[in-house]
Amino acid sequence: MISQKKLQKYQDWLFRVSAYNMALSIIMTDKMTVAPVGGGEYRDARTAYLSGELFSIITDPEIVELLKEMKDDEDLDGDTRRAAYLYYKDAMSTLCIPKDEYVKAQELFSKSYDAWLEAKTKNDYSIFEPYLKQVIEIRRQQYSYRNSDMDLYDQMLDDYEPGMNREKYDAFFEALKTRLVPLIEKVCNAEPVEDSFLYLDYDIEEQKRFSSELLEYLHFDADWGYQNETEHPFTNWVCENDCRTTTKYLKNNVASAILSTVHEVGHATYEHDCDDRYDGMILSEGISSGMHESQSRLFENYLGRTKAFWEYLYPRLAAHFPEQLGNVSVDQFVNAINVAKRSLIRTEADELTYPMHILIRYEIEKGLFDGSISTEGLDETWDAMYEKYLGIKADKASEGILQDVHWSDGSFGYFPTYALGSAFSAQFVKKMREEMDVDEALRSGHFEKCVAWLKEHIHRYGCRYDAPEIMRIATGSDFDVNNYLDYLEEKYTNLYHLK
Amino acid sequence: MISQKKLQKYQDWLFRVSAYNMALSIIMTDKMTVAPVGGGEYRDARTAYLSGELFSIITDPEIVELLKEMKDDEDLDGDTRRAAYLYYKDAMSTLCIPKDEYVKAQELFSKSYDAWLEAKTKNDYSIFEPYLKQVIEIRRQQYSYRNSDMDLYDQMLDDYEPGMNREKYDAFFEALKTRLVPLIEKVCNAEPVEDSFLYLDYDIEEQKRFSSELLEYLHFDADWGYQNETEHPFTNWVCENDCRTTTKYLKNNVASAILSTVHEVGHATYEHDCDDRYDGMILSEGISSGMHESQSRLFENYLGRTKAFWEYLYPRLAAHFPEQLGNVSVDQFVNAINVAKRSLIRTEADELTYPMHILIRYEIEKGLFDGSISTEGLDETWDAMYEKYLGIKADKASEGILQDVHWSDGSFGYFPTYALGSAFSAQFVKKMREEMDVDEALRSGHFEKCVAWLKEHIHRYGCRYDAPEIMRIATGSDFDVNNYLDYLEEKYTNLYHLK
Repeated sequence: MISQKKLQKYQDWLFRVSAYNMALSIIMTDKMTVAPVGGGEYRDARTAYLSGELFSIITDPEIVELLKEMKDDEDLDGDTRRAAYLYYKDAMSTLCIPKDEYVKAQELFSKSYDAWLEAKTKNDYSIFEPYLKQVIEIRRQQYSYRNSDMDLYDQMLDDYEPGMNREKYDAFFEALKTRLVPLIEKVCNAEPVEDSFLYLDYDIEEQKRFSSELLEYLHFDADWGYQNETEHPFTNWVCENDCRTTTKYLKNNVASAILSTVHEVGHATYEHDCDDRYDGMILSEGISSGMHESQSRLFENYLGRTKAFWEYLYPRLAAHFPEQLGNVSVDQFVNAINVAKRSLIRTEADELTYPMHILIRYEIEKGLFDGSISTEGLDETWDAMYEKYLGIKADKASEGILQDVHWSDGSFGYFPTYALGSAFSAQFVKKMREEMDVDEALRSGHFEKCVAWLKEHIHRYGCRYDAPEIMRIATGSDFDVNNYLDYLEEKYTNLYHLK
Repeated sequence: MISQKKLQKYQDWLFRVSAYNMALSIIMTDKMTVAPVGGGEYRDARTAYLSGELFSIITDPEIVELLKEMKDDEDLDGDTRRAAYLYYKDAMSTLCIPKDEYVKAQELFSKSYDAWLEAKTKNDYSIFEPYLKQVIEIRRQQYSYRNSDMDLYDQMLDDYEPGMNREKYDAFFEALKTRLVPLIEKVCNAEPVEDSFLYLDYDIEEQKRFSSELLEYLHFDADWGYQNETEHPFTNWVCENDCRTTTKYLKNNVASAILSTVHEVGHATYEHDCDDRYDGMILSEGISSGMHESQSRLFENYLGRTKAFWEYLYPRLAAHFPEQLGNVSVDQFVNAINVAKRSLIRTEADELTYPMHILIRYEIEKGLFDGSISTEGLDETWDAMYEKYLGIKADKASEGILQDVHWSDGSFGYFPTYALGSAFSAQFVKKMREEMDVDEALRSGHFEKCVAWLKEHIHRYGCRYDAPEIMRIATGSDFDVNNYLDYLEEKYTNLYHLK
């Protein structure tokens, strides 16, 4: 039985952890949105120092001992034991790293992010390459301290998606390739769907005005959320009732900012809807990257690209752009935003070819860590992969190797969760459609009814259960990739009149 | 002689202090600009906790002892001794407060700010009154721990402007009243200057586009600064090469955002131009509130309201608003932005009546702390004061008692420095005009030449010297209020053809 005094110590510790997490989250959001670049070096050094403070708090031996005790103490309630287990797991993978190395790494990640941004702006991979190399080196070093029997990249995969490894992802991607490669081939050879009107000149201020209506429809309220603009859209959960998302407006692509907004609001809503009793602790976060992406991509694709969604919103969008969309029907618009084609940019890729973009990154990451691929010439390796899997090649590095932010701070192992999450979504939505009239909710402007279903069956659990358990709770079955493949096959067969 | 080990300890301590200061500054800027209100309570509690961490660092007895030793150690260079002296002074006024009370006060100030904002939005003083009362109470309590022989409000005045007290301010305001009250009377009875064109409909997006050009002219670069929007414009110095300002756009007042921008950039530039060797320590801050306001008001009034300034910028502004300004000459425009009249809002007041707005706040603060004025009915006290000194009364609390943010976080004693700073500016500008052709620099688009003079004679010193010393260094004389009164008399006599 753990003493009241110790439990109070745990509560105080929780509060301290949440304070530093909040501060670091605000500092990061600020850096990635508005902070003047000139102050970057000064800020990064101090941010790294504060990360070190958090490191010390998280790895405090007395607390680690207490967490170890708590996670197995049958006298405690299940929520508390689960939280203790997750904190303990985090502490164990952190405390093995020497603090000064941890702090130096945080500073490197900040600098590497800046270098990536500069490289992307200047279309010059060579600016980013030395940082990428160092980031990989430092990740290698950090994982080596764990003394795990697992392969290095398997550990990374497991960190983002507990239980996953190369073997399982290989099988997953194999299943995708088997059914999607021929389907993509057929779609690309079919009569193209008209979508040129999406790429006319769309005034950005006008896009922003529509965006306000969109955010209202999605119930992303100013009371708990704020949206900014960045080169690479992201969502950052600052604390309870405070979620920041960003989007990026493109003058010659009206759908881009809209769909990225819907995507990010999916992430935001997931964490916003965790059970209130988990406030201020680890249980109020999303359980895994795959589950997170399943919610963002569910919003974006399984809701945001449906006809019902646009039956409500399209007249509003068209009213902002009468010149460009006045003669375009809602059906034409919905077909256009679902067009599948070989393309370069992952975040703007259609649902069908999207997993191929992920496969490429997965193959590269595997290679970077088994030594078969090097950072030198990685821009060319990238281009060759795109040629191989998508039959298309980038003209400039900003549309090739430099398009994604993830590697700049060493988030290796994250990418595969995008594809996995998309596949999770299919199974969730199948169940959701059995239990409620999704289309009627969307069409009548009641997006919140869909959110309510997701909250009830997924969001509220936060980290209380692992992803496979939540899949069973929400859908009654284990995860089955065929739900995803069936969905894609049916959707694209219909859209392109393949039969 | 202080050991190397101790000096290293001091350096480490400096870094820690700067890290927490940076974090708190970013969190505060975030709160005051974009943070969702729903997360306020959660954030405020944790921000207060982090302030407490900084409190502990600043008041660490071992460090305080070291600072005490350092400030008088002749073996150390003057910069280091000065910094140690200022840190020591800060520590002594902080460490007497019990930490838990300090943390609670920080949290109260955050909540009080929120209450003020809500009260202002809803035009309802009663929402803010209970907070204001508590804030005054807590400030009283905090100062009582100092066990000073000085009067309470004198201590507050001294905190913002070292060396100042009621006696000196009373004399200062008396001098102002003696010469300005009759001048204001004459101006208000003179033939009015036409300024109605300033208050037409000015599209806010268009104002923002001009604002970019203005910021460029002022050399407020994205490399070291970022401007956002808030209800009450402010400047927040996050760290070296990182300064945040805000402004507020009004649809029916084209000059408001412009002049508030110039004002805030004055604050920003002052700290940006401190000597680089003071980076990361207290010496790189502005020395006093009066000196800070002298720089912001120098930018706003002594440069930003001159004809030369607008000879460069007015054609650009008029190009954005051909309909509203097409028939208005630069002379008419400059006269209009210098119109003096009895008005309600301090931040939009003209130079001539501005000190009266300050006098009112000074009288109220004195009364709040000598017990002759209470927070109950303070909205009416406020209105009566405006009636007495400016012959005008607010229709709503948002334009009366609730217009200013300062009292919400207990910044009592700050207001008088606005008037003092304005008076400082007059003396600085008089000298500056003797030494360089200010008008030629402004008119030819070389604002940076004025900034260079200010940097050389004022900005670079940061906190190295007290305000009266800087006045002597920069102008060769002690501060004399008559420079200010002469300036105002000459300016308004000419503008209103009073003789």
